[in-house]
Amino acid sequence: MWARLNGGGSAAEIVERDDGFMSIAGSNASYFADVRGWSGAERKAIRSARGHTALDVGCGAGRVALHLQEKGFGVTAIDNSPLVVKTARARGVKDARLLPFEQIGRFKPGTFDTVVMFGNNFGLFGSRARAKRLLKQLHRITREGAVLLAQSLDPHQTRQRAHIAYQRRNRRRGRMPGQIRIRIRFNEFIGPWFDYLLVSAAEMSGIVDGTGWEVDRFLTEGGPHYVAVIRRV
Amino acid sequence: MWARLNGGGSAAEIVERDDGFMSIAGSNASYFADVRGWSGAERKAIRSARGHTALDVGCGAGRVALHLQEKGFGVTAIDNSPLVVKTARARGVKDARLLPFEQIGRFKPGTFDTVVMFGNNFGLFGSRARAKRLLKQLHRITREGAVLLAQSLDPHQTRQRAHIAYQRRNRRRGRMPGQIRIRIRFNEFIGPWFDYLLVSAAEMSGIVDGTGWEVDRFLTEGGPHYVAVIRRV
Repeated sequence: MWARLNGGGSAAEIVERDDGFMSIAGSNASYFADVRGWSGAERKAIRSARGHTALDVGCGAGRVALHLQEKGFGVTAIDNSPLVVKTARARGVKDARLLPFEQIGRFKPGTFDTVVMFGNNFGLFGSRARAKRLLKQLHRITREGAVLLAQSLDPHQTRQRAHIAYQRRNRRRGRMPGQIRIRIRFNEFIGPWFDYLLVSAAEMSGIVDGTGWEVDRFLTEGGPHYVAVIRRV
Repeated sequence: MWARLNGGGSAAEIVERDDGFMSIAGSNASYFADVRGWSGAERKAIRSARGHTALDVGCGAGRVALHLQEKGFGVTAIDNSPLVVKTARARGVKDARLLPFEQIGRFKPGTFDTVVMFGNNFGLFGSRARAKRLLKQLHRITREGAVLLAQSLDPHQTRQRAHIAYQRRNRRRGRMPGQIRIRIRFNEFIGPWFDYLLVSAAEMSGIVDGTGWEVDRFLTEGGPHYVAVIRRV
């Protein structure tokens, strides 16, 4: 993102999965799009943002934070990449912080009214157990009536043999089918391996259950991507 | 290319260098562009195509072969990838053959008037020694007055530290600075490692020297890419 902001053009990142499957992470442009360039489900879901304070988890280049700032929200944007945080700040995000998702326990109870995890960022939950733990922490740091807007991708909507074989292997190992182990590569840079969680709507409901949250509705758009509007109970 | 032809959209391939450097191979669209979408140097160089018969080395999706066919040339298009040859045929290349570059000795002496190696395909020569050997074979299978149109990329026009370090290592190992060892990755597929040769104009002249060919002129366009118009002597 920093490379693109500094004129790197189409500096797209490569996603390497631990079975050797390689893909190109979306179009880099999508990380920089303003609301008119968002997916229909994201555009619709963001209208459910409520209250005064928002937490943008995995803020990237800050597209969501900038939009909510414009709408008058006090936005805290977190990301675990220093250059990404630098990019978000350079683009005008007032409170962009270098903070790993696992450390959201640092925020005071009842800090936020809205939490946004767009751009497949439900994946940052990593695994079922970690998701349940972090959802409980999100419950603690949000206020009554808070909303969580999270995008995911249904991993079962695929016909790619490599993906189906990967999911079968995951099941045998007791992992969720869409729990992929990946790392990011860009030019000579190789990031650390991490787990990224892709779930169906049903799987997401099961994860959310019992964490102090409840799925209100799913916004789909004909493909495997969807956004869940999740309410604090 | 086959994936794109069949609706794969922006199915771009990833180039992995043996030092771990990863890049995305151009835009996939460029493999399919008609002459109006070519670079200025390619558009200018193709006007030097002469005679009746042309050999398109590393034909890809057939953009050069299709253009020369339209101009009335009898075109033989070769590539070492079965799916690429299938793609070129599906797009209308009449004589697309699965033939590795090393096997051009199979063509009868004096077969071609024009040889085209666009899209960085000078790189297919792989190394200095292999280039000299194959240029001599190209001399044998071409007719008097033949022309060779070859595109390369000057590897010295870079400020990327990873590239400069790679070139230094190459020199120490007695390889040409721009002799990169790469393999292609696409989804779960991993191609074999092969050498790909990037040269400056001066390096190209040195390679061509004594092979029965002579550089007539270089067509540049402000970047590291250029096309050489090379004449049979």
